Amino acid sequence: MDQITNNIIQTYKDKGVLNHLEGPNLPSRKSIRRIIRNLESIIFPGFESEEDLNNELISYTIGAKLQQLTKDLTFEIRKSLKFGCRMKHKDENCHICAESAEETTFYLLNKIPEIREVILLDVEAALSGDPAAKSSEEVILSYPGLEAIVIHRFAHELYKKEVPLIPRMMNEYIHRKTGIDIHPGARIGRWFFMDHGTGIVIGETTIIGDNVRIYQGVTIGALKVIKEEAEVKRHPTIEDNVTIYSGATILGGKTVIGRNSIIGGNVWITGSQKENSRIYLKPPEYIVRKGNPS
Amino acid sequence: MDQITNNIIQTYKDKGVLNHLEGPNLPSRKSIRRIIRNLESIIFPGFESEEDLNNELISYTIGAKLQQLTKDLTFEIRKSLKFGCRMKHKDENCHICAESAEETTFYLLNKIPEIREVILLDVEAALSGDPAAKSSEEVILSYPGLEAIVIHRFAHELYKKEVPLIPRMMNEYIHRKTGIDIHPGARIGRWFFMDHGTGIVIGETTIIGDNVRIYQGVTIGALKVIKEEAEVKRHPTIEDNVTIYSGATILGGKTVIGRNSIIGGNVWITGSQKENSRIYLKPPEYIVRKGNPS
Amino acid sequence: MDQITNNIIQTYKDKGVLNHLEGPNLPSRKSIRRIIRNLESIIFPGFESEEDLNNELISYTIGAKLQQLTKDLTFEIRKSLKFGCRMKHKDENCHICAESAEETTFYLLNKIPEIREVILLDVEAALSGDPAAKSSEEVILSYPGLEAIVIHRFAHELYKKEVPLIPRMMNEYIHRKTGIDIHPGARIGRWFFMDHGTGIVIGETTIIGDNVRIYQGVTIGALKVIKEEAEVKRHPTIEDNVTIYSGATILGGKTVIGRNSIIGGNVWITGSQKENSRIYLKPPEYIVRKGNPS
Repeated sequence: MDQITNNIIQTYKDKGVLNHLEGPNLPSRKSIRRIIRNLESIIFPGFESEEDLNNELISYTIGAKLQQLTKDLTFEIRKSLKFGCRMKHKDENCHICAESAEETTFYLLNKIPEIREVILLDVEAALSGDPAAKSSEEVILSYPGLEAIVIHRFAHELYKKEVPLIPRMMNEYIHRKTGIDIHPGARIGRWFFMDHGTGIVIGETTIIGDNVRIYQGVTIGALKVIKEEAEVKRHPTIEDNVTIYSGATILGGKTVIGRNSIIGGNVWITGSQKENSRIYLKPPEYIVRKGNPS
Repeated sequence: MDQITNNIIQTYKDKGVLNHLEGPNLPSRKSIRRIIRNLESIIFPGFESEEDLNNELISYTIGAKLQQLTKDLTFEIRKSLKFGCRMKHKDENCHICAESAEETTFYLLNKIPEIREVILLDVEAALSGDPAAKSSEEVILSYPGLEAIVIHRFAHELYKKEVPLIPRMMNEYIHRKTGIDIHPGARIGRWFFMDHGTGIVIGETTIIGDNVRIYQGVTIGALKVIKEEAEVKRHPTIEDNVTIYSGATILGGKTVIGRNSIIGGNVWITGSQKENSRIYLKPPEYIVRKGNPS
Repeated sequence: MDQITNNIIQTYKDKGVLNHLEGPNLPSRKSIRRIIRNLESIIFPGFESEEDLNNELISYTIGAKLQQLTKDLTFEIRKSLKFGCRMKHKDENCHICAESAEETTFYLLNKIPEIREVILLDVEAALSGDPAAKSSEEVILSYPGLEAIVIHRFAHELYKKEVPLIPRMMNEYIHRKTGIDIHPGARIGRWFFMDHGTGIVIGETTIIGDNVRIYQGVTIGALKVIKEEAEVKRHPTIEDNVTIYSGATILGGKTVIGRNSIIGGNVWITGSQKENSRIYLKPPEYIVRKGNPS
């Protein structure tokens, strides 16, 4: 048994990728999950927990969550920034990390009211966009597409502040939960609705306007995959009021889908489309052995 | 900090969607998860937990679970029905909710033996339908498609009883877990098998017969999305003994796939098909740069 | 209430599929999850937990995890082997199960250093293959495709040792988490990278070479589904350096995709392809109502 232990520890020394010797210094997935839970329950108070929320208690309840959130965010963001410093200029003890971690945390906390207003528009979009949606409460309590955009809107703020690791960890946690893979870099407008959601992929440099609706299995991706082009815009721009039906694929950093367009199911697009375009798959030919009444 | 707290609480007053002031009155996702866990372990006793199940203990074990289940169901259904009352006729204290919550709970509990028989047929269907399936135990312990249909069969009973929120919450919890999105309204026959499952979407007004087999990425959906048509049949009817291979899309409330038909992979159908139809995608033309032996 | 309990217990007697009378004797999903957690944190020490990992503590920390892992694996594998005996030759008390459970456990534990080396190559493949990947830490902390291949590499070892149930339970747990469905039987080479991952299906008898890259929604599956053919090779062979883009489907046990080939998005292939092939979907005809500037 000791032999096995030693053999394994040996590979840590030979083969690296070890989360480092003096205590953990990478963000903790456990804390990220708690951050997400607290953000969700601050945006939709009372929807997750069993808590009481009468007028006396509410400022106390929310205050307590914000305390925890501040603690977690500051701690995890600091580790991420320090990690960034190590990556860039091997500087283990850059002193700005600590304070800019606090700055970024309060930047995000101060954004909550504004982000919440945008999220309530996403709820509206789901309610008006899905015939099966019976109430905004149903949307908030059950729609995976809503959960994905809620967390994305926070992760994107941290991405803009160039916080390493955490934004991606937030979106990949939601990806695991919902099957919706939005890179935190994607810029997404208001009234955004993803129906069903499973299999949706939205790339890092995607730009999406207002009032866009996307269905399951849609890919908004890169035309080809070249590591060197990491810095250029690799993903499409989708203008306002566009609907993209299930299984459609739209590729390329220069591709622009003009406003008010509809992209039909399974359509595969690698070039720009004018405003008001309607693009449907021409029913492909089938090999049909027609059935006879039995 | 207090400032931030107050700003956030302000948005609750301005912007609503708050789970309301005197204690929570929406179903709790936590309780829904416990309801699902208990239903699963009653249907397949001993498959989830570490519990002992000898003849003396079993009636005690199952009895205890039923107790918890009754408590949770009654409590959550009551909140859902009260929510429905508020939606319909702003009546906060309709007194029938409480007792009809009990009725509905016992309706569901009394259905368990019958539903369990149907579920055992679903296990048979998976075992006989998948060459990779080695035993019914493997199917029960690991197949996401089975878990999805098990919970759907219960959620559908609550949907028929017009319980708001809970049926959808049950299926969306399973959707998150399995990537299979079945609306609780869908009517599904016996011997139902979904292989792999990820990306399957089955709409609210779908009707599926007996002995139907569906593969990953299949959509059974609406032809167009019009909020006004929420009441009409928007999704297809699939008759007995139909197989639908991966990535196929079948749309429209008037679409009927006749019995004994086979719908090939990636096929896109918006109209009815006769019995015994075989419909395959005609191999599309490819741009091929043939490889030469290197 | 007692009535309901009795009715349900009655169905256990009539309808079987009960996890059996003298204590559980099927692998526990809870223990499988703990096994997976411990394997992941041994492969990537410090990436999951909050634990301290300085030089003094590390051998203790890893040792403790190995203890737990040994205990869980031996116990769960023994139950699985005994289950296999019951299936094959109704022998409840075959005495070899116990010791071969220990053998298999130590076989797997001794494999950890070797498997870890291969997994570090998978991390390299993700980092070099994805322009959005910023660091190997990001890949390890967030990429679902990496988590899926990590667990598959262990499950495949147990599959080769013909342990029933557990390998499939491991991969289906990860399938639920990531939307990636790899059968534990699949043989997969080094530098394997799945980007985005959701909807990927890789069948039991698939063989994949080195340096293969696969995108979301790709199916590597069987041409037709015949229970009788469970023993033959039903799934394709993918040679070295092949890239398969999103939504492509490759079917059939005789299908071989030659080395250095590229299979484009949504391509549907049921036959072999030479080395260095480039196969893209010919842009299908669309029904386009061109938009006019509004």
